[in-house]
Amino acid sequence: LGKSTFSSEKLYERTPSGIVMGLAWTALGGSTLYIETTNIRDSESKKMLKTTGKLGEVMQESTAIAFTYAKHFVHAVDATNTFFESNSVHMHVPEGATPKDGPSAGITMCTALVSLALNMPVKDNLAMTGELSLTGKVLPVGGIKEKSIAAKRAGVVDVIVPEGNRKDVNELDESICEGLTYHYAATYGDVFRVAFPDHPSNSNKK
Amino acid sequence: LGKSTFSSEKLYERTPSGIVMGLAWTALGGSTLYIETTNIRDSESKKMLKTTGKLGEVMQESTAIAFTYAKHFVHAVDATNTFFESNSVHMHVPEGATPKDGPSAGITMCTALVSLALNMPVKDNLAMTGELSLTGKVLPVGGIKEKSIAAKRAGVVDVIVPEGNRKDVNELDESICEGLTYHYAATYGDVFRVAFPDHPSNSNKK
Amino acid sequence: LGKSTFSSEKLYERTPSGIVMGLAWTALGGSTLYIETTNIRDSESKKMLKTTGKLGEVMQESTAIAFTYAKHFVHAVDATNTFFESNSVHMHVPEGATPKDGPSAGITMCTALVSLALNMPVKDNLAMTGELSLTGKVLPVGGIKEKSIAAKRAGVVDVIVPEGNRKDVNELDESICEGLTYHYAATYGDVFRVAFPDHPSNSNKK
Repeated sequence: LGKSTFSSEKLYERTPSGIVMGLAWTALGGSTLYIETTNIRDSESKKMLKTTGKLGEVMQESTAIAFTYAKHFVHAVDATNTFFESNSVHMHVPEGATPKDGPSAGITMCTALVSLALNMPVKDNLAMTGELSLTGKVLPVGGIKEKSIAAKRAGVVDVIVPEGNRKDVNELDESICEGLTYHYAATYGDVFRVAFPDHPSNSNKK
Repeated sequence: LGKSTFSSEKLYERTPSGIVMGLAWTALGGSTLYIETTNIRDSESKKMLKTTGKLGEVMQESTAIAFTYAKHFVHAVDATNTFFESNSVHMHVPEGATPKDGPSAGITMCTALVSLALNMPVKDNLAMTGELSLTGKVLPVGGIKEKSIAAKRAGVVDVIVPEGNRKDVNELDESICEGLTYHYAATYGDVFRVAFPDHPSNSNKK
Repeated sequence: LGKSTFSSEKLYERTPSGIVMGLAWTALGGSTLYIETTNIRDSESKKMLKTTGKLGEVMQESTAIAFTYAKHFVHAVDATNTFFESNSVHMHVPEGATPKDGPSAGITMCTALVSLALNMPVKDNLAMTGELSLTGKVLPVGGIKEKSIAAKRAGVVDVIVPEGNRKDVNELDESICEGLTYHYAATYGDVFRVAFPDHPSNSNKK
């Protein structure tokens, strides 16, 4: 009602399992954008993804891509994990009255789902932005400068951005990127290594 | 049809289980806005939430968020409660001809569902307003002044508002907030403690 | 967000099973356009095709035609293959925010589905364009010149085009088609022979 931009800079001090901080970009500047996921307590045999948060068509499709990919990815890193076979999932993007769209929350959505399924929170003070393809490619996005400013304002330390945005980061003023550590992701595996450093499948890669 | 504002100031003298008084805000001022819930007598194996009351898209999504969260919350405060596994629920927002939208009834909806599931009415002369996130965060809303005026007109004594609206309450004229006790909620647990003071899980917290 | 054309020239160095490079044509010129497919990890008895990528109505219909035809074709070349009976499929066309439409990705979509079902990648450095009819006819498309330029820029060696576009290829400047080998397809079988040279059903036809 009258709110045209995001007001939640730091909704969570530490994000529990299933919740990941993303970065959004609007005409009015950058902002944080949390992806919240939780299992749905039901006994349906048909397991699905429910979404809320006034998501536009492209963002709606991003949730579907993230859901398909996350199921494959979780199976790949932990073949014994049956979370998605046993649970429907609800994904919400606060704030509920603010229309949101675009594909750049793809890796954030996928990471929230992976975190929920693995029951493992992501690294503290981490934020990310990047489009996800159906097979785990991470595609470049817009607004790196505005998103960096928003990340810093929210106390973020590590930022994951697409490999294809490396040049945009290199062009940032020192005053903007000072204090932020950028991690470049070409595929979702690169995101996973940064977000879940303590997961067993990452232990031999450090 | 043709009514553009709410006319029900005090629809219920005392709200039974499943019904909670919320506060709405329109261009014409504030008003009370009841959330009514009841179980549906059916034998479907698929348990769901049906909603009526000419709800807009955002408010429709609020009902889904409240439903997902209420199921988790009830399970957390009473693991033996199987209400939502055994019942479909109908949620209605009178008056049926008045279009309504916005996310600010989130905590009211959730509280109505919790009250229904626990079969426990909320505290008398209580009203509330606040957006609910999927994980139980209570987010600030607009119209605190107008909602306070409407609450007082309806004989409300206790008002639950989001922690993020504390500054708005502090700026209210004494003439408006006199006689109202404000309770600030950062998470849904804060709402629950005020609304259900006699619930066993709150007894050691008073 | 602001991107009005495709930026991914060579998203994949080598395309794994289920992924095929197509060629698109916009007012701004030609570009590569990948079709990504993967199975969906679910246990639904109803097997379906889910699509994402901001596809217009015509392209949406192309996916349905490709899905129907691919199921028939895979059964014809390998009667023991039960992939489509056992799996739902998700088809995505990056980049998610770019609206796409038109029928010319028909053979690319079908080939991605066939590749996924056979678990066999297509020939390296192959791209294709062509409308598919429901019975496997390959119909001519526009933009052969622009698509050829894009193919070359992306390191493509073999290009499959509809038989009906042979005259358009013949009219291309030597500077454009030099280094590209054109294969003409009248029916989908012609596409299959070029894309999967090592498939047993093609071995006696070489």
